[in-house]
Amino acid sequence: MNLLLYRGAEQLADGRLELPAGDRRLRHILEILKARAGDRLRVGRLNGPRGWAVLEEDPELERPCRLRVTEDEPDPPPSAPGRVLLLALPRPPALRRILQLAPQLDLERVVLTGSARVEKSYFHSPLLSAGEWREQLILGLEQAQVTRLPEVRVVLRLHELLSGDLEALLPAGGRRLLPHPGPWPGVAELTPAPTAWCLAVGPEGGWVESEVAALVQHGFEPLSLGPRILKVENALQRLVAQLDLLQALQPGDRA
Amino acid sequence: MNLLLYRGAEQLADGRLELPAGDRRLRHILEILKARAGDRLRVGRLNGPRGWAVLEEDPELERPCRLRVTEDEPDPPPSAPGRVLLLALPRPPALRRILQLAPQLDLERVVLTGSARVEKSYFHSPLLSAGEWREQLILGLEQAQVTRLPEVRVVLRLHELLSGDLEALLPAGGRRLLPHPGPWPGVAELTPAPTAWCLAVGPEGGWVESEVAALVQHGFEPLSLGPRILKVENALQRLVAQLDLLQALQPGDRA
Repeated sequence: MNLLLYRGAEQLADGRLELPAGDRRLRHILEILKARAGDRLRVGRLNGPRGWAVLEEDPELERPCRLRVTEDEPDPPPSAPGRVLLLALPRPPALRRILQLAPQLDLERVVLTGSARVEKSYFHSPLLSAGEWREQLILGLEQAQVTRLPEVRVVLRLHELLSGDLEALLPAGGRRLLPHPGPWPGVAELTPAPTAWCLAVGPEGGWVESEVAALVQHGFEPLSLGPRILKVENALQRLVAQLDLLQALQPGDRA
Repeated sequence: MNLLLYRGAEQLADGRLELPAGDRRLRHILEILKARAGDRLRVGRLNGPRGWAVLEEDPELERPCRLRVTEDEPDPPPSAPGRVLLLALPRPPALRRILQLAPQLDLERVVLTGSARVEKSYFHSPLLSAGEWREQLILGLEQAQVTRLPEVRVVLRLHELLSGDLEALLPAGGRRLLPHPGPWPGVAELTPAPTAWCLAVGPEGGWVESEVAALVQHGFEPLSLGPRILKVENALQRLVAQLDLLQALQPGDRA
């Protein structure tokens, strides 16, 4: 936990933060940070500014713990909006890892959907049905030291998404990319460098051909990631890292 | 397991492959692939060619299992040599993940070393002392469908490495890069694109200042990875992905 995150609703009227008894963050303060009264911690308000908090007394796990908060540092400037992941719902352990990655990859939105290769039962995992997805995003925010919670949407069927909310969920004018094995251009061939994009990342084993065709019909361009077979979360990290670099290089600097 | 890997020593005189009773790969064939006599599997010889194997009989876990191997596909052409990771030994779960990543990142060699922020006890984990590191690399090869085993070296102390074997372990003429928080140039500023490199990746919390100074003195250039705090394996993936893209863009295409 590189950043202690709190919700605005957890602040008292005078701005102090009160962590409830038994809270996960309180346990972290006690057992990992071994912090005491007067110690300063890096904190951030969910979807708000970052700052520092000072422990008002020695923390104990069985008692609520109060911290004096100074929100002195604004959140890093928002990245250009329009970084959307359209993801065939992976099995729960992989989804957990990807949700934790989302803030590190500065994703604005994750749209989870079905595929012929996605087990329907994954949609009933507690990760989605009991809201555990939000905890995983928060773990990712704490790691990356950012406060902006990516949005998560679930659309059970791909064709339902494509014929329905697609335009509302994707960045307007953004480039639609479909990493897929085959003799497609690689990221190096994307000119100009896209500033807004949506990546349609398939399940392990890939989208089936009819899904690829439907995505292509909706403006997604197949893209090669190279000869090695990557796990979904690794393919995603590779692609986002390369798109970031392409943008940093600026179209004008190349060719 | 996208590729069943075997060692040359596991081949019988007539070239057939015999998996011993109870073998992990045999269990995978039975329980995950549910393969039967006559089924074809993607295989590869460790540090050798890839090919196909046909099951000679219905497999059973308690009996050795024979496969007829056809090594018809050469290994993908070797990448330009000179992709070396110099890594402050992470805690065992993170090391496991990084070793599995090494073949996906096409690393030629991983040099593990100490740091003020590395617990000495990590060097005694079964991962290193009982050779489990090799199993993790093999899991990574199976995932990436490649056969070339990256080399792993362990040098207990950084200063011992710097004053000793450094030149022998690093690619001759390769660029030495030190990802480190601070106002350093980013990957986009690296010109010309390095074809051979060594990345000195520190522990969680980073190299301490004296270690940074020693690395810089030995030719390592500090490099910024951006404002977000990344886990070691994610920072590594991001950096390698960006170096690969920089190379694909070719110096001539930029600036």
